[in-house]
Amino acid sequence: MAGRTKYLLDEDDLPTQWYNVVPDLPEPPPPPLHPGTREPVGPDDLAPLFPQALIAQEVTTDRYVDIPGEVLDVYRLWRPSPLYRARRLEKLLDTPARIYYKYEGVSPVGSHKPNTAVPQAFYNAAEGVTRLTTETGAGQWGSALAFACATYGLDCEVWQVRASYDQKPYRKIMMETFGATVHPSPSDLTQAGRKVLADHPDSTGSLGIAISEAVEQAAGDPNARYALGSVLNHVLLHQTVIGEEAIKQFELAEDTPDVIVGCTGGGSNFGGLVFPFLREKLAGRISPEIRAVEPAACPSLTRGRYAYDFGDTAGLTPLLKMHTLGHEFIPDPIHAGGLRYHGMSPLLSHIYELGLLEAIAVPQQECFSAGVRFARTEGIIPAPEPTHALAACVREALRCKETGEEKVILTALCGHAHLDLPAYNAYLTGQMVDNDLAQDTLETSLAGIP
Amino acid sequence: MAGRTKYLLDEDDLPTQWYNVVPDLPEPPPPPLHPGTREPVGPDDLAPLFPQALIAQEVTTDRYVDIPGEVLDVYRLWRPSPLYRARRLEKLLDTPARIYYKYEGVSPVGSHKPNTAVPQAFYNAAEGVTRLTTETGAGQWGSALAFACATYGLDCEVWQVRASYDQKPYRKIMMETFGATVHPSPSDLTQAGRKVLADHPDSTGSLGIAISEAVEQAAGDPNARYALGSVLNHVLLHQTVIGEEAIKQFELAEDTPDVIVGCTGGGSNFGGLVFPFLREKLAGRISPEIRAVEPAACPSLTRGRYAYDFGDTAGLTPLLKMHTLGHEFIPDPIHAGGLRYHGMSPLLSHIYELGLLEAIAVPQQECFSAGVRFARTEGIIPAPEPTHALAACVREALRCKETGEEKVILTALCGHAHLDLPAYNAYLTGQMVDNDLAQDTLETSLAGIP
Repeated sequence: MAGRTKYLLDEDDLPTQWYNVVPDLPEPPPPPLHPGTREPVGPDDLAPLFPQALIAQEVTTDRYVDIPGEVLDVYRLWRPSPLYRARRLEKLLDTPARIYYKYEGVSPVGSHKPNTAVPQAFYNAAEGVTRLTTETGAGQWGSALAFACATYGLDCEVWQVRASYDQKPYRKIMMETFGATVHPSPSDLTQAGRKVLADHPDSTGSLGIAISEAVEQAAGDPNARYALGSVLNHVLLHQTVIGEEAIKQFELAEDTPDVIVGCTGGGSNFGGLVFPFLREKLAGRISPEIRAVEPAACPSLTRGRYAYDFGDTAGLTPLLKMHTLGHEFIPDPIHAGGLRYHGMSPLLSHIYELGLLEAIAVPQQECFSAGVRFARTEGIIPAPEPTHALAACVREALRCKETGEEKVILTALCGHAHLDLPAYNAYLTGQMVDNDLAQDTLETSLAGIP
Repeated sequence: MAGRTKYLLDEDDLPTQWYNVVPDLPEPPPPPLHPGTREPVGPDDLAPLFPQALIAQEVTTDRYVDIPGEVLDVYRLWRPSPLYRARRLEKLLDTPARIYYKYEGVSPVGSHKPNTAVPQAFYNAAEGVTRLTTETGAGQWGSALAFACATYGLDCEVWQVRASYDQKPYRKIMMETFGATVHPSPSDLTQAGRKVLADHPDSTGSLGIAISEAVEQAAGDPNARYALGSVLNHVLLHQTVIGEEAIKQFELAEDTPDVIVGCTGGGSNFGGLVFPFLREKLAGRISPEIRAVEPAACPSLTRGRYAYDFGDTAGLTPLLKMHTLGHEFIPDPIHAGGLRYHGMSPLLSHIYELGLLEAIAVPQQECFSAGVRFARTEGIIPAPEPTHALAACVREALRCKETGEEKVILTALCGHAHLDLPAYNAYLTGQMVDNDLAQDTLETSLAGIP
């Protein structure tokens, strides 16, 4: 199997357990706190928002969690996903590096998001919930939850960040085709939305605001729960099918990654790919560098503060210890809508603090330049989010060209850009700008951390 | 391998030859004629439009044609494509039928079109051509050729049918991302286009007009050639990788199709899937019913005339013996842009006349209804074109439910709808109408056949 263009696994090789990195870490991550008492939150605090099964997964210290058969049956529609060797990109870059990408765009909605949407919908349906609310940035998560809800017969209501709602009308249609209802956020349907609109009638929204709206709606309806597409432990847990498959695929390729790069917004695609490799690294079996790549316009790991902060703008969530730009931070409307989040997964933030991964921030034009090169060689037009990983991958491959090192680079290609093509149009027609975060804007926003 | 959700082949199982059905037919298809002399056209007549290798493939009587290694290397980016068992759709329909679909949406552009775009670009590049011109309806073919030209370093210029150009702006961006130049058709860049615009300034265009424009441009530039995405023998030849793979995959599934349904516009996806199965049927090894499904608004097989007619509107092509609605026919702007062609592949037309396949026409709302059911069970939102095949598949499955027959249905799912989502929006919001072709319109158009 060495020497192939792609490394495929059969349905029998689908992982049957998710991997929980927490028990393998040298110390556990700090717990979420109740904003009033500043005491660790318990299951009862989370019960209005999440079903019991997911609350249990959020705090479990088991190394492995079984994947229900009903979830595996849906995963089988697109999983295992392929691992590619980017031979044509390597040739274009004239690099001695070997570049691999794990491609999640084969899912029904074109990204990694259904990996967690499906089990989240399953566990909610199993506990009698009939309606799920959520936010969506780029629209990938909303589409994924819409598909998952169609699968298990749940109603699905999505607050889509206004910037994406306007830039990406096709995403709304996809969600509606799967049967969901979509609102732009901020909306006048919630107190949180109305408050933002009163202060900023032209608000382009943010994930933080949209989360406030969806949380508020779920908390007010006993038959409804809320679903989050990233950030939380159980979300990253579900995504580890990516990394588990990739490890098997590297065995087929008879190769081992030296550098693993992925984009980070809330951190779920990155964590999903990286955690199984981190397990192997902590056990001393491999020693890859692990590199998170974030947008220069929303650099939570590289320029944020590691502190307890709210996950949403209105302050409805528990306090999470994470790298944050401040919960009131509204990122510029860059095209990578899925990376426009003020915070970072607490678990990834903790791992970063432990020194187990590094992080860089990249401006968006460099990212789209890498995306176009990738499309013209590998055929896949990458979503704006993973162009950040590709930009870092190109940097590394060109470094290898200078030094002659034959490094093995693994890139998380978490989705395609079919519904994000206006972003490429902006890039190709010279209408894209690099929105670096100004220091004074950052300081104002950091001052809002409670 | 029986009992799976999907049947995958490895790169080693990629077909290394295309299959030519012509020598296996009881009689050969009638040749194309020169419009002036009404004599069969020779290679010299076609040389201004196509490279020698493709002209040779157009008339070959060899049963198999080797696929060049350079083409296989690009096919490997997405081929072999998966064969799925639609277990969740079967359950929804409560049918004893077993439904399989061969999914071509895994290609870089989301359809079967790159299967022929890649070899066409390869052979042109090998003979020193530097520029390819073409038309595109739904945009799938233009995207495929844009990708293929990027792969071999050719310039690519696409005339996109105005109705699709306006309905599907994302397609244009995809073509441009791959490096192509895109014009709406009719355009004022060609004599053919200017003539149409003079008579019909608001023309929504047609494949026939767009072909005239692309052919005119290629014929006027010695470094350019023209590429066609369907209809011709060499195009259908290249598409037979679909059927060859499907036959191997049915062996893995330990099953045999009783009914094969596919949509027909120019006929390339249908021929590509069907011809290898037809070989097996003609050899007496299997006996499936083979059913072409066309839109009620553009029913060339079911309501057209079997006659010599032009392939384009302006009358620049050789005369082709085919089922045609008349070369001046302009179909209503239905959403299945890829099926808006006045004629049908001469080879498929001939096979239809031989009684080796049947044909039905289906109105578009029934098609989109099937498409939504499919999306909500199987997760893939089908392109408007293959919703026609799915509508026929649903009809057959529901017939089986009534009769209790456990038929095995194979459907050609030739692409996804990511760039066609406005069509689903029209359907979901009740803005879609069924444009059945009026008899008097048809008779006027048929009168234009030379």
